[in-house]
Amino acid sequence: MSDMEVQAANVLSRYQTAILNKDVDGIMALYADDVRVFDAWGVWAYEGAAAWRQAVERWFGSLHDETVKVGLEDIRTDGGSDLAVVSAVATYAAVSAKGEELRSMQNRLTWSLARREHVWKIVHEHTSAPIGFEDLKAILRRQPER
Amino acid sequence: MSDMEVQAANVLSRYQTAILNKDVDGIMALYADDVRVFDAWGVWAYEGAAAWRQAVERWFGSLHDETVKVGLEDIRTDGGSDLAVVSAVATYAAVSAKGEELRSMQNRLTWSLARREHVWKIVHEHTSAPIGFEDLKAILRRQPER
Repeated sequence: MSDMEVQAANVLSRYQTAILNKDVDGIMALYADDVRVFDAWGVWAYEGAAAWRQAVERWFGSLHDETVKVGLEDIRTDGGSDLAVVSAVATYAAVSAKGEELRSMQNRLTWSLARREHVWKIVHEHTSAPIGFEDLKAILRRQPER
Repeated sequence: MSDMEVQAANVLSRYQTAILNKDVDGIMALYADDVRVFDAWGVWAYEGAAAWRQAVERWFGSLHDETVKVGLEDIRTDGGSDLAVVSAVATYAAVSAKGEELRSMQNRLTWSLARREHVWKIVHEHTSAPIGFEDLKAILRRQPER
């Protein structure tokens, strides 16, 4: 792996750990103060880390005794010296307090990472699911390639 | 504007012109051969320009005598020396042969641009609309900021 791929893999790994632990400070440490988030759910755009933090807190608060395991597949990293772009397919699985997987869904994930004072931070996040042509509903599981 | 912002604005402008003219070759000239597209509609991912070209051809073919005007707002460019990320809100308006606007919808747009032999090409595109929490339907118009 290139240095850039190592850095990107490190951010992805910290993202998985912070979500599993519902660690708001841990996840927010990954984002730049001026991050722009195009989230899959409900809201058009979050501008800045303060707005995004509120959304993360609401999400973790809604989980009660469930935890969320994030799986990542098809990771692609396009790297520059001071900016990198990561895209992947993310699977979010809700797990009960007893360790049973209750349900899961998938998102397309895009991150733009910028080097800020020697630390790589997420400056832009875009997560989504494609829209069904007929019913306009989100398709929350990856289909086979066409 | 920085040189990077000029380059990004140039790609955005060519995107608008190519769509208005339903110019498949013009639009495909903007994309790298190995582009990964996470499109708003129907399909999880297009891997490579050949797959994406088929989707563009289907889209333009479905328009008959309508044309599509693309508006772009809230453009943000994060630039590096060899990679840039553009995000924006895009409005796609269908216009009749008589010049009347028939309908429109909005998408969040993210592009990753890479310098390939002195030409900037789109290496990753991600377009989407957020999903309604209640009905799982796409929200195809921007809401006011919360």
